[in-house]
Amino acid sequence: MSVAEAAGLRLYEQHAAALEAAAQACRTRGWFSLFQETPDKHPGGEAARAAGLSAFQGQLGRRFELDQPGMVDRVGEEVSPYSCEPLGIDYPRADLDALFDAARRAMPAWAAAAPRARLGVCMEIVDRLYADVFLGAQAVMHTAGQGALMSYAGSGTNALDRGVEALAYAQAAMADVPAAAIWERRFGSTTLRLQKRYRLVPRGVAAVFTCATFPTWNAYPAMLANLATGNPVIVKPHPTAILPMALAVRTCREVLVAAGFSPDLVTLCCDTVVEPIGKDLVKHPRTAIVDFTGSARFGAWVEDNAAPALCFTETSGVNTVVVESVEALEPVVRSLATTMSLFSAQMCTSPQNVYVPRDGIRCGERRIGAEEFGEALAAAIESIAADGRRAGQIMAAIQSPATPGLVDEMAEAGRRRGRVLQESRPYLHAEFPAARTRTPLLVAVDAGARDLYGEERFGPIGFVITAADRAAALAEATRDAREGGAITAFVYSTDPGFLERAEDGYAAAGAQLTCNLTGPMPLNFAAAYSDYHVTGLNPAGNATLTDLAFVASRFRITQVRTPVG
Amino acid sequence: MSVAEAAGLRLYEQHAAALEAAAQACRTRGWFSLFQETPDKHPGGEAARAAGLSAFQGQLGRRFELDQPGMVDRVGEEVSPYSCEPLGIDYPRADLDALFDAARRAMPAWAAAAPRARLGVCMEIVDRLYADVFLGAQAVMHTAGQGALMSYAGSGTNALDRGVEALAYAQAAMADVPAAAIWERRFGSTTLRLQKRYRLVPRGVAAVFTCATFPTWNAYPAMLANLATGNPVIVKPHPTAILPMALAVRTCREVLVAAGFSPDLVTLCCDTVVEPIGKDLVKHPRTAIVDFTGSARFGAWVEDNAAPALCFTETSGVNTVVVESVEALEPVVRSLATTMSLFSAQMCTSPQNVYVPRDGIRCGERRIGAEEFGEALAAAIESIAADGRRAGQIMAAIQSPATPGLVDEMAEAGRRRGRVLQESRPYLHAEFPAARTRTPLLVAVDAGARDLYGEERFGPIGFVITAADRAAALAEATRDAREGGAITAFVYSTDPGFLERAEDGYAAAGAQLTCNLTGPMPLNFAAAYSDYHVTGLNPAGNATLTDLAFVASRFRITQVRTPVG
Repeated sequence: MSVAEAAGLRLYEQHAAALEAAAQACRTRGWFSLFQETPDKHPGGEAARAAGLSAFQGQLGRRFELDQPGMVDRVGEEVSPYSCEPLGIDYPRADLDALFDAARRAMPAWAAAAPRARLGVCMEIVDRLYADVFLGAQAVMHTAGQGALMSYAGSGTNALDRGVEALAYAQAAMADVPAAAIWERRFGSTTLRLQKRYRLVPRGVAAVFTCATFPTWNAYPAMLANLATGNPVIVKPHPTAILPMALAVRTCREVLVAAGFSPDLVTLCCDTVVEPIGKDLVKHPRTAIVDFTGSARFGAWVEDNAAPALCFTETSGVNTVVVESVEALEPVVRSLATTMSLFSAQMCTSPQNVYVPRDGIRCGERRIGAEEFGEALAAAIESIAADGRRAGQIMAAIQSPATPGLVDEMAEAGRRRGRVLQESRPYLHAEFPAARTRTPLLVAVDAGARDLYGEERFGPIGFVITAADRAAALAEATRDAREGGAITAFVYSTDPGFLERAEDGYAAAGAQLTCNLTGPMPLNFAAAYSDYHVTGLNPAGNATLTDLAFVASRFRITQVRTPVG
Repeated sequence: MSVAEAAGLRLYEQHAAALEAAAQACRTRGWFSLFQETPDKHPGGEAARAAGLSAFQGQLGRRFELDQPGMVDRVGEEVSPYSCEPLGIDYPRADLDALFDAARRAMPAWAAAAPRARLGVCMEIVDRLYADVFLGAQAVMHTAGQGALMSYAGSGTNALDRGVEALAYAQAAMADVPAAAIWERRFGSTTLRLQKRYRLVPRGVAAVFTCATFPTWNAYPAMLANLATGNPVIVKPHPTAILPMALAVRTCREVLVAAGFSPDLVTLCCDTVVEPIGKDLVKHPRTAIVDFTGSARFGAWVEDNAAPALCFTETSGVNTVVVESVEALEPVVRSLATTMSLFSAQMCTSPQNVYVPRDGIRCGERRIGAEEFGEALAAAIESIAADGRRAGQIMAAIQSPATPGLVDEMAEAGRRRGRVLQESRPYLHAEFPAARTRTPLLVAVDAGARDLYGEERFGPIGFVITAADRAAALAEATRDAREGGAITAFVYSTDPGFLERAEDGYAAAGAQLTCNLTGPMPLNFAAAYSDYHVTGLNPAGNATLTDLAFVASRFRITQVRTPVG
């Protein structure tokens, strides 16, 4: 056994109980977390928070130190959505072949190590990322534009939990293959005994693409699933959100080196908006796996062009809401308004299209007209938008400078084709007065205007869509999911029959359905270990966080048969 | 619960113990079979054998009765390799859209049934196929050209075992998803409880392509894995070997109807050699899964073009042997000769390239020269070829009328580029004097002649290749596997260090390795439940029989979340 493998196995011993608890959670799918989900309970206390902030500020305006092979030059064009100022950080841009060469050199020792040794190193990486979660959160805030709490929880602890979840599944899939067997059979008068030994062989180098608005959430599971199954990882961050991934890559490299493995099992592949390298990376002859998070358009290209590499995608879609009947209107519109405002709807799970039957929503004895509903929803959004502090906490900042223009285009179209229920406007962020902000636009249209709402309109843009009746509302909404892709869906109904039809319709369309949820939880909250995220049944992606299919093909099985006496 | 689902669950109860035993075998991977592996022990006895033969003979010259939707006309051009006469059977050729429409109509009730109900129906199909195994064996003999024993065991019981193995994995993957969970978490001062229900949703219609020489072996696992996970199946047999799949499709349809499900969950899609429909089937917008067995060339096209459909392939490759040192020569050449003669090397596992070091093979105190080895191997082949009865049992018949021409081409090239150690010739089959037969061609060449042996030469064609030394022999052989694809590999060496290097080399090349095997078992025998067949690490295919990856992505997971008190 190599020194590195022994170190990995010691790390495994340290983390075995945590990983076993995570595996148990995957099987029962109740609430579970290895981490404190609010910053005030982080074991590092206030000192850790302050250290994270200070480390982030110390990084601004400086080169990012990352000693990896094949550097060609340095690039970096990140701008904080909170200050609208450049971060002034540059990163090594590497020669692609050099990254692959380094990864291939690093791979044999990693592949030869016992799965538990790799899992031990991966869990140690998770631990280190949790220790540095406040620095990571600052990086996410000032590239993606997320609020402080989401940066800590959604992009920190929840993302790490999804990573550990992927490790638990990887362990289960690998453990399904026994190390050896004795096979015995008679052939004529002879009894033949064969010893069979089975070996897990990683696929090869994995390219992990991360997105601009939620970089860590899919990245951690993909990186860790690949590493655990023996595959080196080249991380390709969106050029406007490099820092969160540069930090993660550096942490991975440090933990690998400390254990005695090559750091080149994880490298960073930077590009720029004008010189994108994504297609070259996907089509590189040594790319064996592609994990892609990003736009639906490039995601579709990846799905069509990745072969012979395996490909796991999560893109985006048109998430829908059907409001058929309610016990009380106010909690529903409050929940919808909060969720449609959350991170300015820049999440792959944000609802966009809210369907209402033309004859209105039954609410106890009375019917609420579609118009009345739309106005109530607009008012609930306005009550967040009007309160600068609350708006800042919920809406946070707009990642891309292109988004406000898209919002304005939709407002213009909305005025022509329907009615603007709620205008979008910048709001003044209490802490960051220069922040790029936009309150949600809400447009009322008839179900005919599919060219407006039938695809994802990225950013704080929502539609209240009047359908002929409740059956039409459900049919249109599930059609959006089927054709445009969808990850989440929401239905409000007090009619069990309608709920049943909604369940069947959304199951066929491949969207995760939430029924009649109100209250403090964001409607689109996706819980690691419990919620299966993305179904693969519609264009919003082909990979699920996390099921066996997410891990089982990342390694392959070879065998050796030898006669024994 | 529907009547059909209840019937499926009753069938599950009948077969639960068998399926559980199969699942246990998958975990331990020792010998296991649900069936009698030799015809004389079949529970139906001699009567079953006679009935199978008589049913086959009764089918000759008649239309194949298959009452399925969308028939356009009838086609059929099968010719028995044993009589070289047309079978005279015609089959319905169906409109592709009609098959998909029928499959989609049949799908909801099947998808809604409990996994155990589907598994029960699938196990009943297996039972029925076993009851009719003698008829199926006749169909395989007189289309693929296999010998009687291989048709019964390899294409019958072993293929059914692989099918049950796939069912066991499908059950395990589906059981990994719980039916429901309660998730509870505090948000601020509120505790939220969500009930989550998880639903398994099939992908959609699966197209199962089967090959000319071994139609059932990959077909049964693919058909059963798809059905168990809820997906309808359209079977597309090779136009020269329709009958084995037509029988299987008819059996599936009968069992489905008897249970109360739609027979259109399994249909047959026939084409002709001049009017192939394969590409249309792969690119059909409703094709959700493609299982392909066939040529490497079309397989590569399928892999490149199947997206967004999932794709599982097994094609073929260049299986290699390295002979480095032996305890005794005779058992080695006898085993190699038998395996290279078996079914005239028309198996995806047949070895083609035998590498020998230029300075010969160590055998105890002496060295056997490359030339001496080649002559010994040729003599061992000749001793089978010269005995008509043994030749018939081992070599069986040549499936395709094109194969003899390919053999002659290679003989001609061998004469030019090296030396023909053993000429190929027709042999007189003792039972079927009109049979299309060819004894194996064996050509000696130097390692430079890669254009001859670097790709699969389909049929009874073997090469003895002299490499510079043992390291070069291993390097060339593993290169064949890596570049040309390979499923099996064989090494003979008494040197533990060399065996270790061979293990590493073939593991990296993704070929299953058998070391120092001699004796009565065909070297390329692949045991269900024990041998992982195809690794996915080289061009010989991307799917393994059977691992979790073969089943886990055939269904997806949707969920419904509802607040509970």
